[in-house]
Amino acid sequence: MIKVIVHGCCGKMGQVLVNMLESNPNTQVVAGIDKFCSNHKYDFPVFEKASDCNVDAQVVIDFSHYSLVSPLLDFCKSSKLPLVLCTTGLSQDLEKEMVAASKEVAIFKSGNMSLGINLLIDLVKKATAILSDFDVEIIEKHHNKKVDSPSGTAFMIANAIKDSHKDEKELIYGRYGNNTKRESKEIGIHAVRGGTIVGEHTAIYAGEDEIIEIKHAASSKKVFAQGSIKAALYIANKEPGLYNMDDLLK
Amino acid sequence: MIKVIVHGCCGKMGQVLVNMLESNPNTQVVAGIDKFCSNHKYDFPVFEKASDCNVDAQVVIDFSHYSLVSPLLDFCKSSKLPLVLCTTGLSQDLEKEMVAASKEVAIFKSGNMSLGINLLIDLVKKATAILSDFDVEIIEKHHNKKVDSPSGTAFMIANAIKDSHKDEKELIYGRYGNNTKRESKEIGIHAVRGGTIVGEHTAIYAGEDEIIEIKHAASSKKVFAQGSIKAALYIANKEPGLYNMDDLLK
Amino acid sequence: MIKVIVHGCCGKMGQVLVNMLESNPNTQVVAGIDKFCSNHKYDFPVFEKASDCNVDAQVVIDFSHYSLVSPLLDFCKSSKLPLVLCTTGLSQDLEKEMVAASKEVAIFKSGNMSLGINLLIDLVKKATAILSDFDVEIIEKHHNKKVDSPSGTAFMIANAIKDSHKDEKELIYGRYGNNTKRESKEIGIHAVRGGTIVGEHTAIYAGEDEIIEIKHAASSKKVFAQGSIKAALYIANKEPGLYNMDDLLK
Amino acid sequence: MIKVIVHGCCGKMGQVLVNMLESNPNTQVVAGIDKFCSNHKYDFPVFEKASDCNVDAQVVIDFSHYSLVSPLLDFCKSSKLPLVLCTTGLSQDLEKEMVAASKEVAIFKSGNMSLGINLLIDLVKKATAILSDFDVEIIEKHHNKKVDSPSGTAFMIANAIKDSHKDEKELIYGRYGNNTKRESKEIGIHAVRGGTIVGEHTAIYAGEDEIIEIKHAASSKKVFAQGSIKAALYIANKEPGLYNMDDLLK
Repeated sequence: MIKVIVHGCCGKMGQVLVNMLESNPNTQVVAGIDKFCSNHKYDFPVFEKASDCNVDAQVVIDFSHYSLVSPLLDFCKSSKLPLVLCTTGLSQDLEKEMVAASKEVAIFKSGNMSLGINLLIDLVKKATAILSDFDVEIIEKHHNKKVDSPSGTAFMIANAIKDSHKDEKELIYGRYGNNTKRESKEIGIHAVRGGTIVGEHTAIYAGEDEIIEIKHAASSKKVFAQGSIKAALYIANKEPGLYNMDDLLK
Repeated sequence: MIKVIVHGCCGKMGQVLVNMLESNPNTQVVAGIDKFCSNHKYDFPVFEKASDCNVDAQVVIDFSHYSLVSPLLDFCKSSKLPLVLCTTGLSQDLEKEMVAASKEVAIFKSGNMSLGINLLIDLVKKATAILSDFDVEIIEKHHNKKVDSPSGTAFMIANAIKDSHKDEKELIYGRYGNNTKRESKEIGIHAVRGGTIVGEHTAIYAGEDEIIEIKHAASSKKVFAQGSIKAALYIANKEPGLYNMDDLLK
Repeated sequence: MIKVIVHGCCGKMGQVLVNMLESNPNTQVVAGIDKFCSNHKYDFPVFEKASDCNVDAQVVIDFSHYSLVSPLLDFCKSSKLPLVLCTTGLSQDLEKEMVAASKEVAIFKSGNMSLGINLLIDLVKKATAILSDFDVEIIEKHHNKKVDSPSGTAFMIANAIKDSHKDEKELIYGRYGNNTKRESKEIGIHAVRGGTIVGEHTAIYAGEDEIIEIKHAASSKKVFAQGSIKAALYIANKEPGLYNMDDLLK
Repeated sequence: MIKVIVHGCCGKMGQVLVNMLESNPNTQVVAGIDKFCSNHKYDFPVFEKASDCNVDAQVVIDFSHYSLVSPLLDFCKSSKLPLVLCTTGLSQDLEKEMVAASKEVAIFKSGNMSLGINLLIDLVKKATAILSDFDVEIIEKHHNKKVDSPSGTAFMIANAIKDSHKDEKELIYGRYGNNTKRESKEIGIHAVRGGTIVGEHTAIYAGEDEIIEIKHAASSKKVFAQGSIKAALYIANKEPGLYNMDDLLK
């Protein structure tokens, strides 16, 4: 059983995470940190700032905002606490701060905390290397409120394909017209939008009379909380250093 | 058992059709018509021109070229033979000629001879009318040699949705950028291209926590021959008039 | 805007339903009825028994328990209130009581309140009639806690296929061995179980080089609440009689 | 460009293979071996027995019958020719003979020559190791003439899952009844049969609000010929030894 501090415990993701930590037999939430937590019903103490937190723990999981990452890194360093850093959108300066902090404590960082998505990317790398003469396309599906297309995760997948392929590849985002014959360098990415779809990503490899598809579908935010818990269990006793999902998937 | 004349019996589709007619217990090929038929191995007579054909039959199935449709219509009228007309790309003048001919003999005409695709379109009309507050998107997949995107069939499906929907709809062909939030009037059409995929069309209805998909996949040209045979059996003894797949699907 | 009484407002489905009614611009919850409702936070009155409820309304929606249906029917008759009856497992006696009550007030009853599932069944009937020489199989997927296989909905779909098919059909529930060649009378039903899948049903029609699939996926209970709201809007002003999803789908 | 001898060049698979070898810029068929080859139209010599073949080559590809494997092995040993052995159903004695022969020449052997299926199995091993707390199920689809269920390939996939999983697993082949709650040790295998489906295999990993699917679909026998050609290019210049698809997928 490891003792966890949740940084950002009252946000949407934080609430999901606390719930899952509390029903997990291997984890216990000993404190939360969140500025915006009036009237919480947690039965652990919640501090306004990281620097106020004086509770004994083994790891911190963070789902907060990049503006809070710098004091969080200071807190982890001074408390010698490993950190699972799930906040995205870090500036280059913050990235550098994080790398520096990882010399003193173990830090786990990933662009997408879903273990499943990271596995998908891993499988895609393998498939791309083998199926080098197949055409590759990506279909992603999300709800109708999503403002960006394609999804960040679709780009992660596309970049994994580009990096693993022996040939140069080029992303394209739609086909229309009478002169759209596919070139082999293309990776078509198709952003389907509709209803309340949480998130679905499929990589399609089409060859001669043969198709291979690798697909991931998430139906709630729990998936990200789950990944962060696995990461926390993984780094709780690790040496200082920067860790990511590849370490978990080894 | 009906006696069939195949117009265009030596083309790619014609050969597939003859094979299927010969293994169908309800049909018999009694003659073929094709200008380009040197060295054929058929055991029925093949005539160069429709007007040369003097064999007793009950129906003509045509997979040829629009330039041959006018003499074919004349032949059917003079022989009082019902016609399944599968050639596409008819000019407006030819369409008129066909309509005129249908006053004298039964003519079956469809933009896509696959029974399955026509059923799909029928189901889509029904679904669209009921699921009027769902978002609709279409994914189609074809081989990497196809020059046009989206496919003609995808447009047929999209138009069926537009016609059946109570609201105005607009087709879009790709999404890219940070400001691509879906508008409810959109019908996204996604043209996946890869390998040797013969043809796959899916209509996706996405609502609140609910998705309905209607999908058709063809794996060979047989599908179109099959549809033309069903049409032939259907119109062999019909009164003069213009028939289409809706009649078969009733 | 119609005024709705929710019978069973504090159960799991009741809570989902109240939420959705309150965010729907066309509906307003004016009262709830539930015996087990201590400490509810609703801002409408909740009565322990139907007979206590004296609030002016236009329709009742029920997600409760069959033991409460008889007094509910009495209440609807005496108040002249149309009823959407979503409770399942009614005995034959209760069914008769319901039919008798429907002579006095409009009653809407369905074995599955999801509009999507009912549409699926409708599409399946159409497809079965047309694709009479195709092989049909059903795949359903549910979470790993589900105790019955196949799902009740899978049986609804299978029965719709049997009723619509010109030939006799027989359900089979798995294939294993060296002598399992498919007979054309078979409808294979495959019950996939895993994780937290809410519910997915697919009817597959496989013919010669051609496949048609009709699929429904639900990702939450909202789907059933949504269907009951549509039913409520539909019957709010209807004449006495027994209505079902077929009426909504016309 | 490597010179290939095709053993079994007039069988169904042999014909497909010869066609593909002849259109591949890196391969050239220099001879065929087949007892049943009257009236072939090949422009290379076809010998009745392996021992008759005296043509200079670099590799042999075999799609024949196990009764012909013993003389084939002798031929390869005496001619110092690497062999891609695609015939299945070898007895234990023949397996031993093959192993012995592989001390003298390079032999490539696989239970399924499709590169895609072997990649699928590889990806499944990886996924199984990572997703150890997910439920796994397999769906396979084949045409309605197939006599065995599940397919041999489905068993290959299931065995790969069993071997890669940290826990004991048990295969089950259908679910029916009111007491069918899934046990975590189960791997459900579902054999869908219909129409002319060539072959489709999907491994489904279902976890908490997350699903990963890995799918392979073949639409013709070419897939197996293609795999054998890749194998031939791979072993043409290899040292004696026994090779398999794992070597190709490294």
